[in-house]
Amino acid sequence: MQAPELPADEEFRFRATLSTRWSDKDIQGVLNNAVYLTLCEEARYRYFDSLGLIETDRHFPFVLAQSHLRFIAPGNGPAMVEILLRTVALGNSSFRQVYRLREISTGQVWVECEALLVCWDPVTRGSRPMGDHFRDAVARFEGLSI
Amino acid sequence: MQAPELPADEEFRFRATLSTRWSDKDIQGVLNNAVYLTLCEEARYRYFDSLGLIETDRHFPFVLAQSHLRFIAPGNGPAMVEILLRTVALGNSSFRQVYRLREISTGQVWVECEALLVCWDPVTRGSRPMGDHFRDAVARFEGLSI
Amino acid sequence: MQAPELPADEEFRFRATLSTRWSDKDIQGVLNNAVYLTLCEEARYRYFDSLGLIETDRHFPFVLAQSHLRFIAPGNGPAMVEILLRTVALGNSSFRQVYRLREISTGQVWVECEALLVCWDPVTRGSRPMGDHFRDAVARFEGLSI
Amino acid sequence: MQAPELPADEEFRFRATLSTRWSDKDIQGVLNNAVYLTLCEEARYRYFDSLGLIETDRHFPFVLAQSHLRFIAPGNGPAMVEILLRTVALGNSSFRQVYRLREISTGQVWVECEALLVCWDPVTRGSRPMGDHFRDAVARFEGLSI
Repeated sequence: MQAPELPADEEFRFRATLSTRWSDKDIQGVLNNAVYLTLCEEARYRYFDSLGLIETDRHFPFVLAQSHLRFIAPGNGPAMVEILLRTVALGNSSFRQVYRLREISTGQVWVECEALLVCWDPVTRGSRPMGDHFRDAVARFEGLSI
Repeated sequence: MQAPELPADEEFRFRATLSTRWSDKDIQGVLNNAVYLTLCEEARYRYFDSLGLIETDRHFPFVLAQSHLRFIAPGNGPAMVEILLRTVALGNSSFRQVYRLREISTGQVWVECEALLVCWDPVTRGSRPMGDHFRDAVARFEGLSI
Repeated sequence: MQAPELPADEEFRFRATLSTRWSDKDIQGVLNNAVYLTLCEEARYRYFDSLGLIETDRHFPFVLAQSHLRFIAPGNGPAMVEILLRTVALGNSSFRQVYRLREISTGQVWVECEALLVCWDPVTRGSRPMGDHFRDAVARFEGLSI
Repeated sequence: MQAPELPADEEFRFRATLSTRWSDKDIQGVLNNAVYLTLCEEARYRYFDSLGLIETDRHFPFVLAQSHLRFIAPGNGPAMVEILLRTVALGNSSFRQVYRLREISTGQVWVECEALLVCWDPVTRGSRPMGDHFRDAVARFEGLSI
């Protein structure tokens, strides 16, 4: 099973500072695996909010198609963490992102993640082509060709 | 990004019946993505509990190294779901599992998942070779060569 | 601090069977306190669903004004539990409910809860008088005078 | 049902700054009720951590006996919030705390909470008298007579 391959830190242009909670740890004394998807989602919200692409009622204009987590070191809570996030590819109706989550105090990477997301029409409840405004905003921020 | 490839239903030998909760849905009106890892974890607990391989205080004798989710259809809550679970490969200190989650009332598959798990020593907090008892129990149940 | 006072088991007319999850336990090895509100909410959903009073998109026609939990014994997960639920009083725009949560296998009560709920208008985002249909359905089920 | 009565802001000596998450909202578009117990727990952890009273493995030296939430206004996520926390009474083996949670950007109070906590012996899994060190540290911080 191949782990996601992520770019080096310096290629990321977005960074979210988040906190884990005491309750995020499970009975084995580590940050529960599901919490990492919650933290990536939180970073994703901030990323698209900073680009002005969140819709009414704080809805995302896309849905997840795939997410692939690699657990590198056991996490802790409460702790301050940062997530580096980058959109690495834009398709016709989908895009791919990568995430690196690190504890701030130690610099230890806990998790890396790759995700595939699909532009979504809430009315038809189906995928839709990526809108020009969305594509332009992400491509410009990331320095991607469109 | 390649999605996990899972065997057909009839190759699975374990099935857990679980329920989703009203609170598992998020503001977009679908089962939140992180909940699927929680449900897979719950199925995993039942699988290893049925094999007599859960340790004292309900601890798992391994940790997650990777998990890869493919979201196929939007989920709902509350609902009854079933998860088919199969261990597909046993390594020296790790093993690989696949999960298929389906709503029972409609038969609709919501998620498929592949996971890589590493045998874990809670004292050294590091990986350890898979024990013979663990290997034998899983291999026998799944009909895998050891 | 006075604990909620609940009626005896035989005065309850509604019973929901629910399951706790492995992940509901926290690092102290007991069911986390917040999970009890989630379980009471789940029982509440089933209660109002059985009375035909859940609105479009699975919304509740009311909001919580108060909830008061008494923790009687440490909970566990995974486990099967039942929640006895009774609406004990109907006001002009609010109503009061009580909940008793018990592990099925041992009969041990883990939590009792009292809650005050307020009928809610999602458009004005404010309280509203209790509708006749709602009042009649609850009063008839519980044998309350209206 | 009597709501908890809390002191005025200026009588609180402890303040925790916390953040809510996008996923903390439920399908009705408000912060889910159970999340408030999680946030109070997080403030409680920071309070006792600042007093040097958290035990090995981040365990609390007590358990919850009661918690009583009053929901004042609908919450949001993601948002920055503050929780004012005060221990208002120390008994032989228990103590009482109050919490006021407010959104920082608007000043709006979302929730007030009162909780009763019982000193706990993890070995006997029963209550125990409050230790002198614990009592002294809390009484000194809060200006309570012991």
